[in-house]
Amino acid sequence: MASGTESWILMATGRTPTNIAVIKYWGKRDEALILPVNDSISVTLDPDHLSATTTVAVCPTFDRDRMWLNGKEIPLSGDRFQSCLREIRKLADDVEDEKKGIRIRKDDWQKLHVHIASYNNFPTAAGLASSAAGLACFVFTLANLMNVKEDCGKLSSIARQGSGSACRSMYGGFVKWTMGKDACGSDSIAVQLASESYWNDLVIIIAVVSSKQKETSSTTGMRDSVETSPLLQHRAQTVVPGRILQMEEAIRSRDFASFARLTCADSNQFHAVCLDTSPPIFYMNDTSHRIISLVERWNRSEGTPQAAYTFDAGPNAVLIAPNRKSAGLLLQRLLFCFPPPADNELSSYVMGDKSILHEAGLQSMKDVEALPPPPESKDKSPSQKFPGEVSYFICTRLGRGPRVLTDESLALLSPTTGLPK
Amino acid sequence: MASGTESWILMATGRTPTNIAVIKYWGKRDEALILPVNDSISVTLDPDHLSATTTVAVCPTFDRDRMWLNGKEIPLSGDRFQSCLREIRKLADDVEDEKKGIRIRKDDWQKLHVHIASYNNFPTAAGLASSAAGLACFVFTLANLMNVKEDCGKLSSIARQGSGSACRSMYGGFVKWTMGKDACGSDSIAVQLASESYWNDLVIIIAVVSSKQKETSSTTGMRDSVETSPLLQHRAQTVVPGRILQMEEAIRSRDFASFARLTCADSNQFHAVCLDTSPPIFYMNDTSHRIISLVERWNRSEGTPQAAYTFDAGPNAVLIAPNRKSAGLLLQRLLFCFPPPADNELSSYVMGDKSILHEAGLQSMKDVEALPPPPESKDKSPSQKFPGEVSYFICTRLGRGPRVLTDESLALLSPTTGLPK
Repeated sequence: MASGTESWILMATGRTPTNIAVIKYWGKRDEALILPVNDSISVTLDPDHLSATTTVAVCPTFDRDRMWLNGKEIPLSGDRFQSCLREIRKLADDVEDEKKGIRIRKDDWQKLHVHIASYNNFPTAAGLASSAAGLACFVFTLANLMNVKEDCGKLSSIARQGSGSACRSMYGGFVKWTMGKDACGSDSIAVQLASESYWNDLVIIIAVVSSKQKETSSTTGMRDSVETSPLLQHRAQTVVPGRILQMEEAIRSRDFASFARLTCADSNQFHAVCLDTSPPIFYMNDTSHRIISLVERWNRSEGTPQAAYTFDAGPNAVLIAPNRKSAGLLLQRLLFCFPPPADNELSSYVMGDKSILHEAGLQSMKDVEALPPPPESKDKSPSQKFPGEVSYFICTRLGRGPRVLTDESLALLSPTTGLPK
Repeated sequence: MASGTESWILMATGRTPTNIAVIKYWGKRDEALILPVNDSISVTLDPDHLSATTTVAVCPTFDRDRMWLNGKEIPLSGDRFQSCLREIRKLADDVEDEKKGIRIRKDDWQKLHVHIASYNNFPTAAGLASSAAGLACFVFTLANLMNVKEDCGKLSSIARQGSGSACRSMYGGFVKWTMGKDACGSDSIAVQLASESYWNDLVIIIAVVSSKQKETSSTTGMRDSVETSPLLQHRAQTVVPGRILQMEEAIRSRDFASFARLTCADSNQFHAVCLDTSPPIFYMNDTSHRIISLVERWNRSEGTPQAAYTFDAGPNAVLIAPNRKSAGLLLQRLLFCFPPPADNELSSYVMGDKSILHEAGLQSMKDVEALPPPPESKDKSPSQKFPGEVSYFICTRLGRGPRVLTDESLALLSPTTGLPK
């Protein structure tokens, strides 16, 4: 198999962004291959703030495949990891590292075991599509280690089999997952609509909402919706195709009003289908509703959208503003309505790109307390404030696609033991 | 005009029940005539617990039409009252009261003014279809005073023009509002599917949910849905017609499992369409969601529906149990999860038919505090209790249609002044 001594370890480390759908994926036509009932479109988020980092190591003495997520070993036996691993192994090619004197032949990969360590730079429990970033990074980094020659489209179809929306994390900027027609799923892949630099003034603010409710997993929820919602197929077949075209056009022409209207309407329709499921699925809670009302009230008072909102399978809001100025005004409104609980530092309550905060004149908790009610709110009563309902905010932007990290100090596995550092 | 002295006052008093739709009305095809986009089916609630009582008085010296609601004068100028008043006046007939020596000719009604007093035996603000009962009672009692000979079907089409769902309050038991085809609305009327005695073991428990939110009126909400929801027409044209047939069959065969499944699914779909509206409409809140989860969990654990839930344009739950035993088990679950706030009397927290409470072994707050968690709840933590989220419960049943009250002591207007007593 490998040349010379058996003590070598070969590693690769990758970083992959999360993404948030603006035209939603909800419903599979094939459960095993993860083929969706409609196209979807997402924006990729800046990996500096929300990404998965994965190190994969191979060593001839590893006796089985192992994986660690955020420092804790997890079983790799699940169908989703296994199918990605199998597909990547099939595409693996010869690898030669002359410096280290390592040579792995194509066929060797079938017998070699890997160690995989992954971590998210944001709380996994926050429900921010960590599985999408994680699965995408798993596939991307394995493909890099195994010298897979296929393009990102092919890799996206493998990531899709791990977690549907993971395929959209294979590119930066604006990404479409085309549902495809092939029964084997070969054409159900992600394509980039525009890079993150094409429309680079968009600002994204995520409100991580506190929740006591246990949520339905999106896998289960989606299956229940397909089986029981009388509205789902109508959405998939009649409503979404038109919205996809309109959203592509909105992105192409950087038309924020249209982009925002479509984003909000499609988020609401996805949650409507969840509610139309039997038993009904509630991902949004009263806090989510209040955030929507805040944005809708502002948009209505201005006569044109100032911000868009979208919610995935949980209560967290992802808010999109057309530029830094609007983002500052949005952040003022959010902090007025959802101040941090007492004794909280502003700096730990608003994370990510804090410059938005400073440009909005918010340096400290005193500035937050001094915020006036938004002019569009008729009711100036203190009942408009809901401290504690939001756990924290993350300010971010659109981001790039997956990258290999060549700096070995960023690897999550030890180059000598192949175990987590 | 009238014979003899001008000092006489003629009065009539009627009582009309509220109703709750089990297949929902949401969307008008004609705003002015209030013609719906689909058929709907409702159950009429017992007027002993939830009804409107209206007294109408006519006197030759009244110089204008006036109305009092719950003791407070309100303007009668609205289109809705005016169109009902106009329609009833058109159908008015000769009235003769020999004892009082009063004679009113058909044509006199065009010039005579009326005083109307109405009150609801339940809080108007609770959002329990008070306008449906109120408008139906307005039409029913005016028709009685003015000796209108038309049947309830015709009266229902007049009440419909006051408030769509009011037409369904013209009958007891199970009522269908057929959308009709006629552009003038002549065939958009209510018909009784079965009387309240046909399926008389059903028990209804209403949870009046505390809410801080200001709600979208159903008139505005419905219009917004028709204009903006891509799912509404599909629901109206494709989903509801099948459900109407199934619900008629479930009622005919007293099939509670089918009745409950359809009721829950249709309530959820109505709220799904609200969410699919732009801007989205939220009538249910976290408490409503918790009530649904409680019922769904119980139903799932038993393998067949133990109770149904339905929500109108607000957060209140209307729960339907197949019999008194199930109702007692439901009430135990509800009181475990939503105990009254501290220092509350059980007797003022559970209103209406308290015998359900006693049969369930709940005589006092001590009995409520001693309730064990429902066996189907896996999580026995105290976070399952939400004191204060429900304002109160009303236990009731199906009820009869409108009645004339002949006992003059029940009249709301003075027989000598024609003003509220």
